Amino acid sequence: MKKTAVVLFSGGIDSSTTLAIALKEGFECLALTFHYGQRHAVELEAARRIAAAMGVRDHRVVDIDLRQLGKSALTDKIEVPKGRSVDEMSRQIPVTYVPARNIIFLSYALALAEVTESRDLFIGVNALDYSGYPDCRPSFIKQFEEMARVGTKAGVEGHPVRIHTPLIHLTKAEIIRRGTALRVDFALTHSCYDPDPQGLACGFCDSCLLRKKGFHEADIPDPTIYSRR
Amino acid sequence: MKKTAVVLFSGGIDSSTTLAIALKEGFECLALTFHYGQRHAVELEAARRIAAAMGVRDHRVVDIDLRQLGKSALTDKIEVPKGRSVDEMSRQIPVTYVPARNIIFLSYALALAEVTESRDLFIGVNALDYSGYPDCRPSFIKQFEEMARVGTKAGVEGHPVRIHTPLIHLTKAEIIRRGTALRVDFALTHSCYDPDPQGLACGFCDSCLLRKKGFHEADIPDPTIYSRR
Repeated sequence: MKKTAVVLFSGGIDSSTTLAIALKEGFECLALTFHYGQRHAVELEAARRIAAAMGVRDHRVVDIDLRQLGKSALTDKIEVPKGRSVDEMSRQIPVTYVPARNIIFLSYALALAEVTESRDLFIGVNALDYSGYPDCRPSFIKQFEEMARVGTKAGVEGHPVRIHTPLIHLTKAEIIRRGTALRVDFALTHSCYDPDPQGLACGFCDSCLLRKKGFHEADIPDPTIYSRR
Repeated sequence: MKKTAVVLFSGGIDSSTTLAIALKEGFECLALTFHYGQRHAVELEAARRIAAAMGVRDHRVVDIDLRQLGKSALTDKIEVPKGRSVDEMSRQIPVTYVPARNIIFLSYALALAEVTESRDLFIGVNALDYSGYPDCRPSFIKQFEEMARVGTKAGVEGHPVRIHTPLIHLTKAEIIRRGTALRVDFALTHSCYDPDPQGLACGFCDSCLLRKKGFHEADIPDPTIYSRR
């Protein structure tokens, strides 16, 4: 029987590449996507298309309303910063930081791993082009894994969940090269924090800028259609 | 200005006593209750009445559908065990264990603490009469706190959230004595995992048995009306 893994999957470049890596490593993947009241719900459609294209049979979209907790540009009506340099991005934690978001996501993934008896969990966090989020750092992942070992039935019974972060030390360009090698169709992926009403990427938010820079540095054509160039 | 604290609050004996302790310690309390598709939704009503009786102004009920993750007697149609001895309860993790439940609850509480700039979080876990749940042990709380320090903006910026567990080393009888001294109206609280259609406690699930035993050992009359005696 194939080993199963839970893969946190938003439909962006990083999580799509992570899913491709988990599949390549031979895991039967359970892709987990959250609908958390974010403005870019177009992500959900992208996630559905990519999961289908990759032949994932079990793709769950879980509704969690983080708007009840408030205060982030990704869920509230705060202005998304535009046109910042990558240096500016990494100097401070941006307003697009959603409090404890990856902690909440990983907690659900952990619960799903226990329920499905999966001992492996994949998350596409990235400590280089990570846009300043504390919950993307290796030290955080390590601590989460340890907490999960102590606090779950699976962990206590001697088969803790292992958290895989295959992208953690890669640049965006390296991720794009890796995904391309694994035949991820990046034209289907979505990154923008502030898409237009048609779902087109803005081209100037942190996420779009990192994406453009990544394709440029990877020397691979960016298949994204931006609303402005 | 009063310090604020987020208090995980289910409406049972433990969390009601915890809320009373946090108020007594001078915190402005933000009570956080989850509606997670459990069968005993009567808990929610109890929580509302108790929070109101204690004068808590900010009581949030957050909807999270753990049924999407399945597999526990508290959310599914598995038989709730009845008539077990306390010894039997502590020998194994019961079927009423909800995978990663406290991890998910604490993650939301942490997010709410960050949003409201609270540096204190209260949870009424209990390591003695804890019915075998791994996510009620001191070692787990310690690890969660450490993970939160590393993985949140507040933690990284030097003001991590502190998790208070005032009941962790108390017996149920001691909790009941403490709550009584703080004028908690236990008649309003609800413990039963399997209430009847009128919301009356069954009297025989683990939670009812621990409750009865607690009042008995505290030598305080149990104000609970059970559907069967």
